[in-house]
Amino acid sequence: MIGTARRRRDGEAKVRGATRFVGDMPAHGLLHARPVLAAEAHARIIGIDTEAARAQPGVVAVLTHADLPLAGGSGRAAEPLAREEIVWAGQPVALVIAESEAAAEDGAALVDVDTEWLEPVLDLDAALADGAPPARISARAGDDDSAADAHGGGGDEARGGDGDHGGAAASPNIAVRQRLQAGDVEAGLAAADHVVRGRFRTSWVHQAYLEPQSTLAWVEPDGTLVVHSSTQGAFMTRQGLANTFGLAMEKVRVQAAPLGGAFGGKLMIAEPLAAAAALVLRRPVRIVFSRTEEFSAGNPAPGQLLELELGATADGALTAIRGRVVGDRGGLGDMGVEALSALLSAGPYRWPAHDLTALGVTTNRVSPGAYRAPGAPPAAFAVETLLDELADELDLDPIELRLKNVLVAGDKGLDGQEIKVFGARECLERVREHPLYAQRHTLPADEGVGLALGFWPGGLEPAGAICKLDSDGRLTVVTAAADMSGIENAFIAIAAEAFGLPEEQVRVVTGDTGSAPYGGVAGGSKVTYTYGRAVERAAEEAKQRLLDVAASELEIAPEDLEVADGEVRPLGAPGRAVAIADLAAKVYTFAGRHRPIEGYGSTAQVSRAPGAAAHLSHVKVDRETGEVRLLAHVIAQDVGRALNPALVEGQMHGGTAQGIGWALLEELAHTDEGQLQGGTFAEYALPSTDQVPPIETLLVEVPAPDGPFGAKGVGEPPVCGVPAAIANGIAAATDIRLGVLPMTPARVWAELQSATVV
Amino acid sequence: MIGTARRRRDGEAKVRGATRFVGDMPAHGLLHARPVLAAEAHARIIGIDTEAARAQPGVVAVLTHADLPLAGGSGRAAEPLAREEIVWAGQPVALVIAESEAAAEDGAALVDVDTEWLEPVLDLDAALADGAPPARISARAGDDDSAADAHGGGGDEARGGDGDHGGAAASPNIAVRQRLQAGDVEAGLAAADHVVRGRFRTSWVHQAYLEPQSTLAWVEPDGTLVVHSSTQGAFMTRQGLANTFGLAMEKVRVQAAPLGGAFGGKLMIAEPLAAAAALVLRRPVRIVFSRTEEFSAGNPAPGQLLELELGATADGALTAIRGRVVGDRGGLGDMGVEALSALLSAGPYRWPAHDLTALGVTTNRVSPGAYRAPGAPPAAFAVETLLDELADELDLDPIELRLKNVLVAGDKGLDGQEIKVFGARECLERVREHPLYAQRHTLPADEGVGLALGFWPGGLEPAGAICKLDSDGRLTVVTAAADMSGIENAFIAIAAEAFGLPEEQVRVVTGDTGSAPYGGVAGGSKVTYTYGRAVERAAEEAKQRLLDVAASELEIAPEDLEVADGEVRPLGAPGRAVAIADLAAKVYTFAGRHRPIEGYGSTAQVSRAPGAAAHLSHVKVDRETGEVRLLAHVIAQDVGRALNPALVEGQMHGGTAQGIGWALLEELAHTDEGQLQGGTFAEYALPSTDQVPPIETLLVEVPAPDGPFGAKGVGEPPVCGVPAAIANGIAAATDIRLGVLPMTPARVWAELQSATVV
Repeated sequence: MIGTARRRRDGEAKVRGATRFVGDMPAHGLLHARPVLAAEAHARIIGIDTEAARAQPGVVAVLTHADLPLAGGSGRAAEPLAREEIVWAGQPVALVIAESEAAAEDGAALVDVDTEWLEPVLDLDAALADGAPPARISARAGDDDSAADAHGGGGDEARGGDGDHGGAAASPNIAVRQRLQAGDVEAGLAAADHVVRGRFRTSWVHQAYLEPQSTLAWVEPDGTLVVHSSTQGAFMTRQGLANTFGLAMEKVRVQAAPLGGAFGGKLMIAEPLAAAAALVLRRPVRIVFSRTEEFSAGNPAPGQLLELELGATADGALTAIRGRVVGDRGGLGDMGVEALSALLSAGPYRWPAHDLTALGVTTNRVSPGAYRAPGAPPAAFAVETLLDELADELDLDPIELRLKNVLVAGDKGLDGQEIKVFGARECLERVREHPLYAQRHTLPADEGVGLALGFWPGGLEPAGAICKLDSDGRLTVVTAAADMSGIENAFIAIAAEAFGLPEEQVRVVTGDTGSAPYGGVAGGSKVTYTYGRAVERAAEEAKQRLLDVAASELEIAPEDLEVADGEVRPLGAPGRAVAIADLAAKVYTFAGRHRPIEGYGSTAQVSRAPGAAAHLSHVKVDRETGEVRLLAHVIAQDVGRALNPALVEGQMHGGTAQGIGWALLEELAHTDEGQLQGGTFAEYALPSTDQVPPIETLLVEVPAPDGPFGAKGVGEPPVCGVPAAIANGIAAATDIRLGVLPMTPARVWAELQSATVV
Repeated sequence: MIGTARRRRDGEAKVRGATRFVGDMPAHGLLHARPVLAAEAHARIIGIDTEAARAQPGVVAVLTHADLPLAGGSGRAAEPLAREEIVWAGQPVALVIAESEAAAEDGAALVDVDTEWLEPVLDLDAALADGAPPARISARAGDDDSAADAHGGGGDEARGGDGDHGGAAASPNIAVRQRLQAGDVEAGLAAADHVVRGRFRTSWVHQAYLEPQSTLAWVEPDGTLVVHSSTQGAFMTRQGLANTFGLAMEKVRVQAAPLGGAFGGKLMIAEPLAAAAALVLRRPVRIVFSRTEEFSAGNPAPGQLLELELGATADGALTAIRGRVVGDRGGLGDMGVEALSALLSAGPYRWPAHDLTALGVTTNRVSPGAYRAPGAPPAAFAVETLLDELADELDLDPIELRLKNVLVAGDKGLDGQEIKVFGARECLERVREHPLYAQRHTLPADEGVGLALGFWPGGLEPAGAICKLDSDGRLTVVTAAADMSGIENAFIAIAAEAFGLPEEQVRVVTGDTGSAPYGGVAGGSKVTYTYGRAVERAAEEAKQRLLDVAASELEIAPEDLEVADGEVRPLGAPGRAVAIADLAAKVYTFAGRHRPIEGYGSTAQVSRAPGAAAHLSHVKVDRETGEVRLLAHVIAQDVGRALNPALVEGQMHGGTAQGIGWALLEELAHTDEGQLQGGTFAEYALPSTDQVPPIETLLVEVPAPDGPFGAKGVGEPPVCGVPAAIANGIAAATDIRLGVLPMTPARVWAELQSATVV
């Protein structure tokens, strides 16, 4: 079964509308919550007048920060509603809870927030400037309260800079500073025959999942907080809610509901709001963000500034990389992607020396979250653009330059860990053979083919799984992993193969945190690699129980039996085969002599399975309008082993399309005062079908030694290199290089104009 | 911890009303179902007029048999509403479903069932008589439809009698006949110096749980039937519903809710009704039986007739036993207790020869179910009464007679299985030492002390369990076992002891059939013995994972570590101990290097752990009124190992009290037409506190080699011998022997009169 394209098991129910998302869940006595969002980007709260809202028919309560049963924690989860200070336009300031969604909305419109304006900090450059105004003046939850400027976070260590890369040590807005360095970068750059430098800016980009943040919460009579949520991490959410509200872990039960898209963005955004209201009101409360609330108060990918310089010898050997990656942490973010982005800005290459600094900066923007390969598309945009320039300067084939330096098995990554296996080389070789690569020099005017390599190290987290055979001979896989991006199909394939049943006889159940084995966040391209391995082991253990039953019933040693096609067969005597269902029926009975045909498996992967994807993007630039059209796109991705090529290709298509959004279209823009411009899908420029060219997917299979059947995560790698490939395509077509994403017609046109003028 | 009396963990929530029973569960859009019960005991259905009911405001539907989506199966579950024939007064004939309970009740009163009277068969003697009218004329579900009299069931084999014990081969009402025989009984009885004979009759007795049968069912959009029910067997209910409605097992999900009492009676009575309505109407439907419906349409313990003769040599060696046990199967019962009762009527004694026949008989009574030690109290009533008579005739001490013949380890039971360990001897010896036993000959007139030995072989069924440590260092046990009779406390004790945590740090979760490991019915005194062992193994496996983590963190081999008091300690270096919570915190993180601290365990016990309890009952008979008063009661029970003596004693108290109900009070009486007399707790004579004497509990601990920490089931054994002990007490006080239960004042008085007259 492994390696054959099959239809998605979860597809039909989703197409028919039979999947029950959180917003569809019936609940008796349900209340509906609507947040009141701050209008200003930065302000002190003088007072919140809730009287008119509370008088609104159907409104049950209007909660503000002081009403919430908060116990601690830090960051946004610990401050679900603004405390004394508003730190972004769109920050939830109050929560109106009503018997109907309409009443909640009407109530929210009547809440009057009285504020005193404070100067907003909206731009990373402005935030970093010496003497910049602080983006937050009050202490954040979880910070030491003694200093009003404690929002700076990292303290002495963070402030004590290395002096490199533009100082900024005097800014009150630097929350975190991290530095990753090894070797002698000065010497490396000095020894280089060519050094290239660049400054890159990428925008805030929303994950744009179809289903908004949705949580349903209630409190059982025994005090247990029960949360059904559109979350990527049931156990992580349990931990977060337990921290936020000071509850014992066993007094919080989280069920991950089917997800209508997430892409990294669904972790502890809506849950604290619904849970707080349920804890206060002791009734079920649901919050489903509106699309505008999503854009204003979600947790999109943050804007970044990247400055890199790198050198190489004349024969193309990279010598050193130096740089600084600045990530926007918004007003409340306790999580940033800048450190990971700094690591990834070195690409999957061997560097004799590196020196990379990451700065997390507080601004008056929304708090950032993870989005498919967090920090990777900006990093690849920077480093792959510079490598392209370097190849030009060195007059080397861009693939040859990369092949000369790309990491291979046995090398150590920037994190010092040895790489067991890595298919980046194979991906590059694969696109080199593609006709489009050969045609790149014979294209019409204003067309070009850009190349880039995307890289994702792959996440790790412990996971457990159960496999259990029912008395009718069908197998159930139980994990805590949310139903998202076809995970179910991977588990089914793995369990079916490991146990020996047809896929139709296997199903997956997502258990809640009370009853399911532990499992990490469904993200970071780690589900197949970690959970999947646990599923494989659980299925193997269950198979062993099945063989025990068969051995006892057939009086044949287990090692002389095999499982195939729904039967247990004595080796060499297929005529004596017994159907699995017949064996199962002997187990689950009064006075049954056999243990249940069940198995548990778990894993804690210690070696990563890094992913890579090489892209060729065929672009055409309209010099009149600056519009970039994509004529074709080729992606060669190392997928380890494609359990179901149809789903893997789906991930490659989706990642590439989202990369096109990063490259050409998407940007959460704001006014000079920091208010979001456009908060609907009509205004936010996602790639539409006419903007996505035919995508040719080339599956490169370099088996991951620790993955189930050699498989590994495939979700993140395809997005990483897309903006860089398109940028390099634009350069090939026009000789202009844009350092800014998205590369909108206006920006391209302006760059074309200045290039022409010069 | 094991062996110390502790408070029940589940007690507080139940006392505070915080336990959510099925009747308390909120459900959006819930419909309420009310059954229409047959008035006649036996009738043909001409028509059911539902028009007036359907016109009732709030009534959504009125369902009759033809409306139900039935697919097969047999017995009562396959015929939730009467098909063409009513076979007992109280049989559900229609189901009214309404928006409110009141509307459902009003609707039910308006359903008009038109019937043609058929002669009812209400009495076992009448049912067995040659030429008896048939209690059912139409074929039952699951029977071959070809013969109208196929209700007889067992077919040729069942009909082909052995001629012994009163024939009855010509009755159309014998559903099942089973015979258990070995050795030469004729020769054994001929060789006996004394032979005693008796005929015994016991009544229908209701389990009288406080919470009535309750089921909430709905259908998920993907077609899954979800059932939350007050059931003793989630997996058994799933299997039953899948069979009844022709659903794949994975399309039925059953959650066992906390039980407000069950005692064997809560299995597939309410579930088919609620599930059928939910499947038809596609809305959530709940049914909660009224108390009258409970008495009329539950599944109480059936009436029985027992005829036994047994012989012994002059020195008290038993030679042979012969007998017939007739059990009432009512009009729809596909499950009877007569075969088990026949087996148990030999008591836990060595018999050189036995010949015991069981007859299951169809009548126009409700279908029977299991009730705490099904068939055992009547069996012990018969055999222990006759042994008492035998001791009198042989002039032997009744305990000596029993000790001479009682089974001990190494003996084989009537089922041919060797007994590994058995504490009946120790129980008898224990009561022999009790002062009450010595005082029995020096009591005032009309007082007496009766002795009896009760015996329960113990059930077996495979079971699985999971133990998982949370990141805060607390342990969760997951099984499918319903929360009933303190099960939770046993699991907590076992897991705490096996893992090495204080009990307060352990909790139990009852998972549903979708996510929890398999487990059998919570009944037959097998939960602690089977599930408990699985819990022990799961905890041991989880502990192994904990030691792996500690070994890696402390760099000490796992075998040099011990777990105690919430810490992992290096042997000989307690100063280096690490708190379990601190180790747990290292596991459940991004890039965690340790597998989850979780374990799975399962069991399929193959050797039973039979239970025994010896009773002394001190009775006083009022010759004026026939009233029997209990002055004291002593029970010595082999409990294997008392995990929590407080709970074990609670079981001994409860079992004894229910045995007093059997002995003196309880009877589901009916009119000559078969209508139930009295259907409320005001009329049904449960023992009240003034009728239950102080009960002295003597715990005899003969460890069960395969039980967790030597423990075994303790629920059933205490009830078995109570009616016999009281009957023997009455004989000691008055010299009269009643062969009928309950021994009401009227019956005792009448017997005293006839004894006096003679």
